[in-house]
Formats: sequence, C-alpha cells, structure tokens
Amino acid sequence: MEIPIYIYLALIAGILSILMAIVFAKKVMKADPGNERMQEVSGYIESGAGTFIKTQYKILGIFVIVLAIALLFLPSPLAGGSRMIVFMNWEQSLCYIIGAIASMLSGWLGMKVGVKANTRAAQGCTIGTKEGFNVAFFGGAVMGLAVVGSALIGVSIIYMVFQNPLVILGFSFGASSVALFMKCGGGIYTKTADVGADLVGKAEYKLPEDDPRNPATIADNVGDNVGDIAGMGSDLFDSYVASIVAAMILTTALIAGPAMPIFVTLPLVLCAVGLIASLLGIYFIKWFGSEEPGKALNTGTYLATVLYVGLAFIMIYIMAADYPGYAGRLWRIYWATVIGLLSGIVIGFTSDYYTREDRKPTRKVAEAALEGDAVVILSGFSYGLMSVVPAAVGIIIAMAIAYMLEGVLGVAMAAVGMLAIVGTIVANDAYGPICDNARGIAEQGELGDEVIRVADKMDSAGNTAKAITKGFAIGAANLTVMALMFSFAHEAGISVIDLLSINVLIGAFIGVVVPALFSALLILAVQRNAGKMVNEIRRQFEENPKILTGEEPADFNKCIDIATRGALRELVFPSIISIIIPIGVGILFGVAALAAFLAGAILSGFVFAIFMSNSGGSFDNAKKFIEDGNLGGKGTDAHKASITGDTVGDPFKDTAGPSINTLLVVMSLTASIFMGFLLLFGGGLGLLAAWM
Amino acid sequence: MEIPIYIYLALIAGILSILMAIVFAKKVMKADPGNERMQEVSGYIESGAGTFIKTQYKILGIFVIVLAIALLFLPSPLAGGSRMIVFMNWEQSLCYIIGAIASMLSGWLGMKVGVKANTRAAQGCTIGTKEGFNVAFFGGAVMGLAVVGSALIGVSIIYMVFQNPLVILGFSFGASSVALFMKCGGGIYTKTADVGADLVGKAEYKLPEDDPRNPATIADNVGDNVGDIAGMGSDLFDSYVASIVAAMILTTALIAGPAMPIFVTLPLVLCAVGLIASLLGIYFIKWFGSEEPGKALNTGTYLATVLYVGLAFIMIYIMAADYPGYAGRLWRIYWATVIGLLSGIVIGFTSDYYTREDRKPTRKVAEAALEGDAVVILSGFSYGLMSVVPAAVGIIIAMAIAYMLEGVLGVAMAAVGMLAIVGTIVANDAYGPICDNARGIAEQGELGDEVIRVADKMDSAGNTAKAITKGFAIGAANLTVMALMFSFAHEAGISVIDLLSINVLIGAFIGVVVPALFSALLILAVQRNAGKMVNEIRRQFEENPKILTGEEPADFNKCIDIATRGALRELVFPSIISIIIPIGVGILFGVAALAAFLAGAILSGFVFAIFMSNSGGSFDNAKKFIEDGNLGGKGTDAHKASITGDTVGDPFKDTAGPSINTLLVVMSLTASIFMGFLLLFGGGLGLLAAWM
Repeated sequence: MEIPIYIYLALIAGILSILMAIVFAKKVMKADPGNERMQEVSGYIESGAGTFIKTQYKILGIFVIVLAIALLFLPSPLAGGSRMIVFMNWEQSLCYIIGAIASMLSGWLGMKVGVKANTRAAQGCTIGTKEGFNVAFFGGAVMGLAVVGSALIGVSIIYMVFQNPLVILGFSFGASSVALFMKCGGGIYTKTADVGADLVGKAEYKLPEDDPRNPATIADNVGDNVGDIAGMGSDLFDSYVASIVAAMILTTALIAGPAMPIFVTLPLVLCAVGLIASLLGIYFIKWFGSEEPGKALNTGTYLATVLYVGLAFIMIYIMAADYPGYAGRLWRIYWATVIGLLSGIVIGFTSDYYTREDRKPTRKVAEAALEGDAVVILSGFSYGLMSVVPAAVGIIIAMAIAYMLEGVLGVAMAAVGMLAIVGTIVANDAYGPICDNARGIAEQGELGDEVIRVADKMDSAGNTAKAITKGFAIGAANLTVMALMFSFAHEAGISVIDLLSINVLIGAFIGVVVPALFSALLILAVQRNAGKMVNEIRRQFEENPKILTGEEPADFNKCIDIATRGALRELVFPSIISIIIPIGVGILFGVAALAAFLAGAILSGFVFAIFMSNSGGSFDNAKKFIEDGNLGGKGTDAHKASITGDTVGDPFKDTAGPSINTLLVVMSLTASIFMGFLLLFGGGLGLLAAWM
Repeated sequence: MEIPIYIYLALIAGILSILMAIVFAKKVMKADPGNERMQEVSGYIESGAGTFIKTQYKILGIFVIVLAIALLFLPSPLAGGSRMIVFMNWEQSLCYIIGAIASMLSGWLGMKVGVKANTRAAQGCTIGTKEGFNVAFFGGAVMGLAVVGSALIGVSIIYMVFQNPLVILGFSFGASSVALFMKCGGGIYTKTADVGADLVGKAEYKLPEDDPRNPATIADNVGDNVGDIAGMGSDLFDSYVASIVAAMILTTALIAGPAMPIFVTLPLVLCAVGLIASLLGIYFIKWFGSEEPGKALNTGTYLATVLYVGLAFIMIYIMAADYPGYAGRLWRIYWATVIGLLSGIVIGFTSDYYTREDRKPTRKVAEAALEGDAVVILSGFSYGLMSVVPAAVGIIIAMAIAYMLEGVLGVAMAAVGMLAIVGTIVANDAYGPICDNARGIAEQGELGDEVIRVADKMDSAGNTAKAITKGFAIGAANLTVMALMFSFAHEAGISVIDLLSINVLIGAFIGVVVPALFSALLILAVQRNAGKMVNEIRRQFEENPKILTGEEPADFNKCIDIATRGALRELVFPSIISIIIPIGVGILFGVAALAAFLAGAILSGFVFAIFMSNSGGSFDNAKKFIEDGNLGGKGTDAHKASITGDTVGDPFKDTAGPSINTLLVVMSLTASIFMGFLLLFGGGLGLLAAWM
C-alpha cells in the first residue's frame, strides 16, 4: 500500500514541535531564578514534584509491564486480516509500551520545565507583567509542544511501519494508561494538599493563601504541577492520540480502494496543520502578551482557530487538486473538522459564562453566600447542572452536522478538528499552575505587594483560560470517545446496538452508572486524604507553636509525603475498575452490550464532567468575587460560606470532573483492544447470551 | 372479546379498598383531637393545606382542560385498529379527565384525613405509643387505600367499557399530570418552608424545631402534608396505574388469540391480590404496632410481600387449572412479579443501609462533620453517588431475570409485582408526615417532654420507613417507565432502537441530560423561594421583637402565602418542559430517537433519583446522630456542619429526587399518547430525517 507523501508533514511538524519545546525550555532556564529564598522554595517544589512523579512512575511501570504482557496474549488484529486467534500480539504490546513512555516523557519534561519556570516567572514579575507572563507562558508552551510533538511523531512512525491503525490502538492505550494514573493520582494529590491547607491554615488559623507558615503550602504548589501540568498534559495527549486513531480506524473500515491511504493519513495531516496554527498562535500570544495576559491567552486561542480554518483550507485545496476524484469527500471532512473546532469553542464559552464572576450564574452563587453555607452549595450545584444543557446542545449540533457531512467518519473528524489546536490549549492550561506557583513563590520570597499584584493578575488570567480549556478538553474527549465507540462497533462487526435487546439495555445501564461511581470514589479519596492532611497540619501547629510565629519552618516534607502516599494508594482501585468493568460487561453481556455500555458512560460522563467542572469553577470564582470586596468582602459570614463552596468545588473541578474524560477514553480503548478476546465468549454475544 | 370473570376481582378489591379507607377515616375522626391550642394549630395547618390544594387544583384544572382539548385532536388509537388519522379522540380525552379527577380526589382525601390525624395522633401520644401510632397509621392508611382503590376501579371499568388498554393511557396520563404538579409543587412548597424555617429560626435565632415562635413553623407543617402525603400518594398512584397500563398494552401487542383476554387482565388481577395482601399487612401493623412502631412498619411491609407471594401463588394455581393451556406462561409471569417485588425490597434495603445512622455510610458522613461544612457535603454527596451501584445491580438483576422468563412483558410484570403492595407502601409513607406534624403539635400544644419523646419515637420510625419506601418508589417507577418505553416502541412499530443511528444517539443524549436540568430547576426554585422566606422571617423578628419573646404570635399566614405562591409559580416551567421536550424530540428526530430519549432519561433519572434521595437521607440522619449526643452533640461546630448538610440534602431528597420519578412517567406517557401525532412527521422519522 502506498502511503501518501503528506504523512511526512505530520512527522516534520512533530519534530519541529519538539525542537521548539527545547528552544522554549532553554529560554525559560536562562531567565533569572530570583533570590535565594525563592530558589529554595522552588527547590522544595521541584523535589516534591520529583518524588511524586518518581514514585508514581514506578507503580505505573509495574502496571504498564503487566498490561503489556497481557496484551501480548490477546488475539492479534494483524492475524491475516481476519480475527483468527493468533497469540503473541507483540505489535500492540510494543506500541503500548512506546505510548506509555512517550506520555511519561512529555509529562516529565512539561513538569520539569514548569517547576523551573515558576520562580523565574515570579522574578519576571518584579520587572513587569510582560516579563513575568513570557516566562510563565513559555514554560507552559513546552508542555503543549512536547505533547503534540511526541504524539504526532509516535503515531506517524507507527503507521509508516505497520500500515495498520489497529496497531496504533496500542500506542493510544499506553498513553491512556499513563493519563489515568496522572489524572487520578495528580488530581487526588493536588486537592488533598489544597483542601487540607485551606481547611486548617486558612479557615482555622486565618493564614493568607500561600503563607510559608502553612505546612501544606509546598505540597499545594507541588499539586499544581503534578495535577494541573502533568495531569492535564497527559489527559490531552491521550485524547489527541485517541481521536486520530479512531478516525484512522473508521477510515479503513469505511473507505475502500485506492482512496483509503489518502484518507487514512488525513487526520495526521490535519493535526500537523493544527500544530502549525498552534505554533503561530503561541508566538502571537508572546507578542501580544504585554499588559493584558487574559486577553492575550484568549486571543491566541481564537487566532489558532482562525489559522487552522485558513491553513487547513489551503491544505485541502492542494490535496483536492492532487486527487480531484476525492475532492468532494476531502471538503466534507474539512468542514467536519471546522465544525468540531467551533463546537469546542462554544463549549469553552459556556464554561466561561457559567464560571465567570461577572456573569449571572456565578454572581448568583456569590449572592447565595449571603444566606449561608447550604444555600451557596445548592446554588453552585444547580448552576453546574444547568450548564450541561448549552454544552450538550453544542456537542449535539456538532455531531449532527458532522454526521450529515460524512457519517460516523464525520463525527470522528470533528473530534480531530476539535483537538487540532491542542498545542495552544495545553500551553494555556499549563500556564495557569505556573502562575499560581509564581504567586506563591513571590509571597514566600517576600517580593512585596506590587509584585504579588502582578502575579495575581497573571494568575487570574490563567483561571479564565483554564475554564475555557477545561470545557474544550471535555468536549473533545466526548467526541473522541463517541468516535472510538463507533470504531469499536465497526471492528466488532456490530451493525446495530439495539436498546430493545435486554443485554444492550443492561450494558447502557451499567455505563450510565459508572461515571457516578468513579466520581464518588475520587471525591472520597480526596476527602480521606485531606482528613489526614488536616490532622498533620493541626499536629504541627499544636506541637510546635514557633511555626505559627514564623520562628521555625514547618515540616513541609511530612505533608508532601501524606499527599504522595495517599494519592498513590487511592488511585489504584478506580484505575483498575476502569479496565475491569468494560471487560466484564463484554464477557457477560457481549460486545453489543459493551458498545451500549460505552455509549451510556459517554453520555452520563459528559453530564458529570461538565457539571463538576463548572460548578467547581463557579464556586471558586464566587469566592474570589467576595474576596475582591464585594457583598461584604473578606472575613464576613458570606465569605466563610463562599470558602465552603470553594472547598466542595475543589475536588469536583480538579479531581473527579477532569478524570472522567480519561476514564472514558481508557474504557473505550480497553473495549477496542480486548475485542478479539471478548469475541471468544459466546462468539461475542457474551456468556449470558444463552439465557437472554 | 370475552373478558374473563377474574377482572371483577379487581373491581371488588378496589371498592373494598375505598370502603376500608372510609372506615379508617371515620376511626381517625372519632379520636380525641386534644386541647384547644392543639386544635388551633391543627386548624392553621388544615387551612394552609386547604388553601394550597385549592389554588393548586385551580391551576391544575386549567392545565388539565387545555391538555384534554389537545388530546381530543390527536389521532385516535381506536380508529379501526390501524393508525388512521381520525380526529375527535374523545375516549383518551375523557379518560384523561377521569384519571386527573381520581388522582386529585384521592390526594385531597388523603391530605384531609392526614391533617385531621395529626392533632389526634399527638393527643394519642399522651396515652401511649400504641394509641398515638394507631391514629397516625390509620390516617396514613386512608391515603394508601384511596390511591389503590380508585386506581383499580378506574382502570378496570375503563377496560370493561372500551376493551382497549390504549384508552387507559389517557387515565394514566391524567393521573401523571396531577402527580407532576403535586410532586413538584408540593416538593417546592415543603422545602421552601423547611429550609426557610431552619436557616433563620434554627440557625440564626437558635429556636428549637417546631417552635411556635418561628413564623414558618405552620408552613413547614403544611408542607409535610402537601408534599409528603398528597405528593407521594399521587406519585405512587401514577406509577401504579402506569405499570398496569404498560403491562396491558404489551400483552395486547405480544399475545395473540384467545389467550389475550386472560393475560391482559392479569395485571389487574395480581394487583387485586396485592391489595388484599396490603390490607392484611395494614391490619397486622395495627395489631403489632404496640411499642415498636419502626419494627411494626417494616414487618408489615415484609408480611405484605410474603402474603402477596402466597396469595398470588394460589390465584395463579386456580387460573392455571382454569386455563391449563396457558399454565406455563401464567407461572412465568407470576415469577416475574415476585422478582420485581423482591428487587423493590432490595432497593429499599439499600436506601435503608445508606441512610441509617447506625451503618457505615451515614456514620462516616457524621464523622466528616468534625472536619467542617465542606467535608460533610463532599462525604454525603459521594456516598449518595455510591448508593446508586447496589440499587442499579438490584434493578438490573430483576430486569434480566424477568426478561429471561417472559421477555419485555416479563419486565412490565416485574413492575406490576413491585407495585402490587403499593397500598402498604403509601400507608407507611403517609404515616411519616402525620407523626412529624403530631410532634409539632405536641410541642406547640405544650404537652410536655414525655409526650414529645413518644412523638419523636414515632417520627423516627416514620423516617426509617420513608427511606425504604422512597427506594421502593424509585425502583418501581424505573421498571414501570422501562415497560412504558417498551410498549411505546411496540406501539410505534419500532423494531430496533439503534444507538449507531445518529438521531437515536442524539435522542439518548438529550434524554440523559433532562433529569439533570430538571433537578437543577427544582433546586433553584427551592433556593429562590427559601430566600424569600428567610427575608420574611427576619423581617418579622426585626419589626416585632415580641414574637421572639412569645408575647405576640408570629404571622404564619404571610409565610404560608410565600410558600404557596412560590411553589405554584415555580412548578409551571418544569412541568411544561416535561411534556414539550419529548414531543420536540419526536418531531425533530423521530419516534426511534424518542424511544432512545426515554431510555436515556430513565437511566440517568435513576442515577439522579437514587443519589439525591439517599444523600439527602444520609445528611438528615447524620445530623440526627449528632443531635442524639454523639461526636460532641448539639451546639458544636460539627453539629452546625451537619445542619448545613441537612439543609443541602432537604431539596435533594424531598424535592428534586422524588420528582424525577414523576418526570419519567409523564415523559413516557406523553410519548405514548402523542405517538399518532408524531408519526405525522416524516412518517415517524422526524423532520430532520432527510438530512441524517
């Protein structure tokens, strides 16, 4: 089979992206790391983050090796085209390991640069907003570019070698396994530290945010790095690769003949175009990012979108000229990607609307704080649920139009389009925690109020950007898993997923329940760990009163240790069920029920993910609104109530909500990868088929 | 067509049931209504409840008339067997009005007796637990028997007249329209008053529960009657009728020839058996209910279950002897009903486990209160979500076994079985608010601590019974709407609901989102109204300090007025969308998408209903656990945190959670009733079919 020359575009763009990441990383390293105290604090954060990642990667290593061995014994998708049982499925197993390593490496690089960037950004703030912004933003961009680059290089090389997208499923599954650990573990870690620090330090002892006397401060900063930078990066790595693979698999299933190689590489080509749009967007943000960081970040996103639409138009124009027979389909796919990208922007806007303090919902949540803790919770909870509606409408319209254009392949390409500018998205997102850390370091390095004000401004821009990127990430993951569900159904030879069949209905039922269970497990994990953290902080303050007076340093390491151990202990069960449950459904009820299970989980997961992210964001900003002096300002009962809201919202928005994406991708990929195995049970009808 | 003689059993049982309700009502009226102050308070409650019901029924009347006229112009299901467009669908329209009136009458009767029973039960408590219990329980039983009796009489007469279950859909839809208003309106009313009374009276002014100085006390008591007695009664009336209709429609669709009349009346016959089991259960509870009200209620439920299993066995044995050719199917249907009933008990147990203060989940929620308001919320929220899992497993197993026995008809019969003992369930449930009121009246009538202790004991038994019946109600509604979805699909000629079709997937997506939106709207309604109530209570205390000293009475009427107006204003929008959205989905995306919409709503509705009911129940009991002197007891920070939890849980468990049942039934019936109309759009494929 001849592979079109266009695929080299993806490879070259990937390599370029990695090179740029290295250039940006060097730029960050060259910046002034600030005074000794700042470097000390930054060093603590770096060593805490390093410890967590090292321990996490060790457990992850075991997990990956076990699964790689398991994959080895699955029926190979390469066995002569038919699904014969030929064991020694080394191709997927190998790619699985490569995918896991690629994701781990880019997570590690992103986080490493992130922790270097924080003190340098804080120091930059002493000169001005522009200087601080540039360091923080370049630091974040490293993560974004590393993710996109390694994904594109990995996928295009694997495709060139094996010429079968089913092998790339292994790569994607590797990336997902890592994402699941990073997202759950990082999410639990960051909120254990944050909630613990808030409950005792801020609420009981009235210490300000980031106060160096609070023993959980460093753990909180570490959490931002491991949860928000490495976790978010691996999450989008995972969605990105999965969207490409789903589109490639559907192409091989749906498009036959000489057109196939052209269309199968099209997702890679369009992602390469998107990467170039992202790179230009990142440069633009750098130029624009003088005094208005918030505006710069958003304008950069919109610019990357517009550039994608324009550049992809040119690309498709060239390809259509090259392959005039396929022009119609090429254009339809182009429009599907554009629709996908636009709907991502719509969902981002929705999240922004529901979480911004100058819009009605969050304003109402803040006002509810005047009536007490319970009312603020009810209000944020309800607006979070309401916010699902416009986001769902956005996705539904995108799905419908993409389907009208090119059927299920159109839906898959909409997901690709949505993720095309993922470089910009990850960069904007990783910027946030760097600024958050920079603010902390500025506080602890005693750089003065003016510098903290600048850092605060940068931080607040990061929060707004984060609301948008989080909506984007959920929407993209949703379309991606939809495409994976379709590709699973095609591969399993399922022509209909009929809800009137009882096994299918049961599959859908279980699917709808799983995101609820998963969310509950993660929130309880945070709650349990935060309880331990609370006890430890109280113990330190009680046993050594000199910590509170600032005469002696708090024992940061103890808190880091609690967060690390707790996160690692707690992530195992949710991770395992996300692999066990789909396999169990497939074995008992058959592959059609498993497809319905995925559909149920996708739909209910969307509701939970959007609801939790947006209610959490709204609680957070309602609190900030009050802290800015509104509705009585700090120290009032309303402020106290808004802190309760924020504490409830923390694990919603930073642990459970964003982990659901990864859960869905992992479950979908598990279904696809284990399909050959599941077909062994009752010919894919499941063990219970005989009785149903 | 010959109607088997067995149907008269249903009619006779129904009439018997109404007669018993009247006997019980008279018994209640004969009891001593207590001292003057008690009668005065009871009079306030009665007049408040009367005002609400009257205003509610006025609006409801308009709604019913408008819909009855709309139904008149739908294509008639009786038009010569084929779905020809013959307008003047007077049969369904007439039955719709009858169903609405029957539900309104039994709601009115139940509530009327309920408000008479409260002061008499309080007076009974001065003699002993047994005397108090008997009055409260008989008062509740009136509602239970009125519901079951009028439903059985209505359905059996309509069937005898028209001999077509599709006409009974009208009756069922009438009952559902009433239930929707009563459940949403009553739910908003009761929590507006309760939350308002708690937030100001208890939290700010430290008044005890039911203190007569609290201006919202009477409104709170009224709320128990309109929300918990009338609302719950109309909810179960609605599920009960719907389960019978769904089974009858599926029978006519699936069973042809001379066997049909036997099987089509079987749901009615089995419900009659269940009614007799319930009556015996109610008598047993009366005998047993000496000193252990909690045990008596639960034992009564189990006894009714066992009696149903035994009596239905005898009944089927007789019928199998009468129709030996159908013995196999008769027995399979028998077992399906038994499985349904048992799974109801399992779900009830689950709710009980997750909400009881002596079990791990609620104990953990109570312990979380030690760490503050936010942690208790996170904990109750998570355990509520976890509780969905065992309940879902129970329903799934019941569905699977029932399906193995007799296909979709088996599932429908499982719903009938689950609801067979609904008389006992409603009786137990209505007992709760009567005791709650009795406690309030004992407090306000100054009957002394010993009497209040007795009333408290009765009240706490009511709460436990309520947890079980609520789980039961959700499970029953779930299986019922499942059966309605199947019957809708059969009637609409849908042979497959394929999730791989984009319109079906979109339908399911919208369905999954709707319960989230509906919950949010109801909770926000409570929050808005409670805010007004809070302001009013504060105003009264501030403008007239003599209220707090007890020298002058509070202005109860103002609070009743706020709750009434607010509830009526807020229920309109959620009620209308529950009819508009399914019709809209059907018009745009076709009937198959509408079936998927129902499936999505059923599954996600189950998750939300169980989660909200159980987390609410757990918050409530965690608070009671602390108030009983545990974990520091009253007045501590932990107690305060547990009150926050309870206040959040209130609209979860008493407004949004239980309303979802009714929402699902209304949406399913809307689909069935409007089906002929929806088939006019693109032949049932929907307006968008051409583009998809």
